[in-house]
Amino acid sequence: MLFTKEMKSKLLQNINSPEDLRLLSEDQLPLVAKELRDFIIDIISVKEGHLGASLGVIELTIALHYVFDTPNDLLVWDVGHQAYGHKILTGRRDNFHTNRQLGGISGFPKRSESHYDTFGVGHSSTSISAALGMAIASNLKGDFEKQHIAVIGDASIASGMAFEGLNHAGVTDANLLVILNDNAIGIDPSVGALKKYLTAVKEGKNPRQNNMIKSLNFDYSGPIDGHDIFAVIKELKRLQKIKGPKFLHIITTKGKGLKQAEEDQVKYHAPGKFDASTGEIHKKIEENLPPKYQDVFGLTVLDLARKNEKIIGITPAMPSGSSLNFMMNEFPARAFDVGIAEQHAVTLAAGMATQGMIVYCTIYSTFLQRAYDQVIHDVALQNLPVIFCLDRAGLVGEDGATHHGVFDIAYLRCIPNLIVYAPRNEIELQNILYTAQLGLQHPIAIRYPRGRGVIANWQTEHFSKYKKTEIGKSIEIKTGSNVAVLSNGTISNNISLAVAKITNPDNIAHYDFPFVKPLDENQLHSIFKTFKNIITIEDGVVKGGFGSAITEFAAAHNYTSKITVLGIPDEFIEHGTVTELQQYCKIDVKSLEILFSTY
Amino acid sequence: MLFTKEMKSKLLQNINSPEDLRLLSEDQLPLVAKELRDFIIDIISVKEGHLGASLGVIELTIALHYVFDTPNDLLVWDVGHQAYGHKILTGRRDNFHTNRQLGGISGFPKRSESHYDTFGVGHSSTSISAALGMAIASNLKGDFEKQHIAVIGDASIASGMAFEGLNHAGVTDANLLVILNDNAIGIDPSVGALKKYLTAVKEGKNPRQNNMIKSLNFDYSGPIDGHDIFAVIKELKRLQKIKGPKFLHIITTKGKGLKQAEEDQVKYHAPGKFDASTGEIHKKIEENLPPKYQDVFGLTVLDLARKNEKIIGITPAMPSGSSLNFMMNEFPARAFDVGIAEQHAVTLAAGMATQGMIVYCTIYSTFLQRAYDQVIHDVALQNLPVIFCLDRAGLVGEDGATHHGVFDIAYLRCIPNLIVYAPRNEIELQNILYTAQLGLQHPIAIRYPRGRGVIANWQTEHFSKYKKTEIGKSIEIKTGSNVAVLSNGTISNNISLAVAKITNPDNIAHYDFPFVKPLDENQLHSIFKTFKNIITIEDGVVKGGFGSAITEFAAAHNYTSKITVLGIPDEFIEHGTVTELQQYCKIDVKSLEILFSTY
Repeated sequence: MLFTKEMKSKLLQNINSPEDLRLLSEDQLPLVAKELRDFIIDIISVKEGHLGASLGVIELTIALHYVFDTPNDLLVWDVGHQAYGHKILTGRRDNFHTNRQLGGISGFPKRSESHYDTFGVGHSSTSISAALGMAIASNLKGDFEKQHIAVIGDASIASGMAFEGLNHAGVTDANLLVILNDNAIGIDPSVGALKKYLTAVKEGKNPRQNNMIKSLNFDYSGPIDGHDIFAVIKELKRLQKIKGPKFLHIITTKGKGLKQAEEDQVKYHAPGKFDASTGEIHKKIEENLPPKYQDVFGLTVLDLARKNEKIIGITPAMPSGSSLNFMMNEFPARAFDVGIAEQHAVTLAAGMATQGMIVYCTIYSTFLQRAYDQVIHDVALQNLPVIFCLDRAGLVGEDGATHHGVFDIAYLRCIPNLIVYAPRNEIELQNILYTAQLGLQHPIAIRYPRGRGVIANWQTEHFSKYKKTEIGKSIEIKTGSNVAVLSNGTISNNISLAVAKITNPDNIAHYDFPFVKPLDENQLHSIFKTFKNIITIEDGVVKGGFGSAITEFAAAHNYTSKITVLGIPDEFIEHGTVTELQQYCKIDVKSLEILFSTY
Repeated sequence: MLFTKEMKSKLLQNINSPEDLRLLSEDQLPLVAKELRDFIIDIISVKEGHLGASLGVIELTIALHYVFDTPNDLLVWDVGHQAYGHKILTGRRDNFHTNRQLGGISGFPKRSESHYDTFGVGHSSTSISAALGMAIASNLKGDFEKQHIAVIGDASIASGMAFEGLNHAGVTDANLLVILNDNAIGIDPSVGALKKYLTAVKEGKNPRQNNMIKSLNFDYSGPIDGHDIFAVIKELKRLQKIKGPKFLHIITTKGKGLKQAEEDQVKYHAPGKFDASTGEIHKKIEENLPPKYQDVFGLTVLDLARKNEKIIGITPAMPSGSSLNFMMNEFPARAFDVGIAEQHAVTLAAGMATQGMIVYCTIYSTFLQRAYDQVIHDVALQNLPVIFCLDRAGLVGEDGATHHGVFDIAYLRCIPNLIVYAPRNEIELQNILYTAQLGLQHPIAIRYPRGRGVIANWQTEHFSKYKKTEIGKSIEIKTGSNVAVLSNGTISNNISLAVAKITNPDNIAHYDFPFVKPLDENQLHSIFKTFKNIITIEDGVVKGGFGSAITEFAAAHNYTSKITVLGIPDEFIEHGTVTELQQYCKIDVKSLEILFSTY
């Protein structure tokens, strides 16, 4: 049997939609809350996923669907990590065990999945703008009763985009309710002046004066205890009758209801498999596994920072996810978590670079999309040698379409002055991080994937043995006779594995081009003069990516070799394991083996 | 003689750097202010440029350089429209008449131009992040005396990025002074809840409670009269002695000192040529000129909005620049200026689109870079049929490197679901705007350039005569024998003019591909089967752009025709007239004529 407490879930097992929930008396709701918590814990303990955020909003979730007329009233969850309870109460209880699996339900709200999911989310701080757009649309349609609710966390509301939404909403008469779910933590603890202010409000130190939300023209109420379901319901019912923009501040505990999750909120954000009754995380057998790329980054930058005091690290809200926390712990004055503020992170780095600092700005590839203008306008245009470390580049797996870092090569390659690099492995990542602080004359973007590398003894045998990387240089992995395979970055390893499996590996030449920009044109001339067949392979979109750069080169020099471009096709890729998704894109080892066998 | 009041400028003519300024007594500064205003008015009246913003900060500019030890103390001007006085006082008085001209000084602060320009600007709201980065760097270097000053307007501070900077700065001990230059206007009047709040502060209605800036942990002072130079100097001297983040709120009048500029602040933002003594704008002889593309957009959307009540317009702070103000005037409930908030604008549009509204979201191409993630994550991923109208696409001329809209094709082409279109002329722009509201199943980005079209009688003869555009269809402009020229959008007109000039126009076939995506593959197959020589021409970057899409197509289908890709080379293009810059990029009529003659 899949989960242990199923039979105890007397109420939950009869709730197939919020309509069923609304048939219950208020007195029964605490039991629904308990069952919903247990249900989530039971499934996530086995199937993995994001735990803490959803546990923290169980009461709020029930109260919202109990009080409001969802899906007619429109509910937008910011980010969506907290929406598991929402999914379970809106008809997806029996599919919930497929969460984040290929073909299963998404880990985030998604319009195509349910009409209760009014807006697809994943990246933070979009909910206020989206819900305001819905509310204005309702006004224009003459529907002044419909409710529009954005639920946003205290980490997400500190992002500039949320401020823009509040700033607009405050001067409209839109029927918008913004609920601030204040638990003082995103994935890592929240930071910044607004967090400090909210803490003061919670502690009763600053409840009346300098109310930032009131200064933005909102009807502010709170803070109230978000785990007191009766209080939450009462306040929602009161707010339901008030027209115009409203703001409710509730205080919750991330991980509520599971002791360990409350105590170690960072670890239990997405804890992996654990014991549903004790909360104990199952230790994975991790002996002799290669390191995570994020740790290669974190350990290397720490090591370099020890030797070069001009080195600074910046992360927008991902200290643990990027492993910049290694440096933050040892050099708190030189390593900064600036919160969910990618735009600020990049321009802050640019400002520091003007003063001669060497700044490693680590941002997940998908989130650098938030700071695209700043990369162009503040860094590249001024040719400031900021070092962008793009974690989670390429297909990321279970987080799915919102989180794949597959556009970066295409959107960075067109920017003048910028070096674009992808290492094949831990050693190359370490060496480029080292090289980047040796007086590089340009900004550089270094992209590397989620997950582990390929060198099990990296830390014991290779760590700190730096070698300077020659900028713009490609690598001949192997010679061959019939076809030249050109790769960029870690996908190169799939190629090597595939080549090893075929009958005639001598047919295949393999060159890695870690530098998408500048391209190694000497090597390319030699390849195009030698080979009639060329295959490019990348862990990124084929439109405008690395392969596109190769077709541009061929056109510019009038080469007529046949070029086959492999990578992410021109569609949004859903969730699944990285291997499953690579199979879909035909860049997994097996697909490449079959392809290479035809040459 | 270039300017009329030169001989009267007794003080200014001796100020070659702020050191000279500091030799004067405070009593002499009002005269410097007068001379500086006159100098700017005299030159801009003849040479054109941005007038109102600089006139509004004359006293502040003098006070800053008088009190602070620039360039040792670091001064960052947000946007930079207001920095003319700064340029003139920092050694560029005698070059100021070359402002915005090819080879002349930039209209914006620029690091390569002067060490007084500490950070290159152009796009708004970067100053706080940049100055904070500098301030943190100074702290790390052990320099606790250095001052770091960001001067930011009330329109720019309402942008999310500025909030992110404030939110971080408020919890640092950085030596940062943020000066809010509050004149209640950007290019158009400021909007939003923060503006409303600032107005209340100015009117003494809300000076103490709900102080948003104080809630972000800043030492707030003001508001003070920004034209009282003695008061400003006194306050700057006081703040100079205070450590940590500080915030000074000053009230100024945009256009101060020129009556008409004070009274019509929108028009006198950049008035063109005018009479320096009377302020009267010189009327251009505009008979029979083709309309501006922005007006084709503005008039067409207004016309469509009259017939279809689902139509909504959104602009982030460019009502007059985009001509959305036509619709805003007639349908104020359906056309929105959301302020400098591109991120919010896009996701607001997405929210509206979920409710069946047809949203024209008009954003300058260069500013859409600010909302790149929202285009991907909130619009394209959900396949919401938002209509992006990208004004100022391609080379924009005198605004220069920060403002050219040349990356859009490359950064949009890689996004699944998105249609990417560029019209050749007014009629095509009108027709695609019409087509976009006929139930399009995908989002679309429509890019068109700054300035005028090519059809003088468009408004009298063609306006409102709508014809549906077939999605993905190319246009055969002319047949020819030796080479096929493939263009995208208005650059097509250069090609037609060049072809008309050569001896053997029959050699040249010309096809326009208004759709970069989806490409007209049928036509491409026919072209590649017919022609051995192909030239692609676009008003955008060659790396990853339209030509790149053609090289991808050729590779995918194994065509071996020679492809020459013309467009913006892989470097940042400076300021000059559009024609001069096209010459530099070899996509002007003359360069194309020479090229075509070789076939």
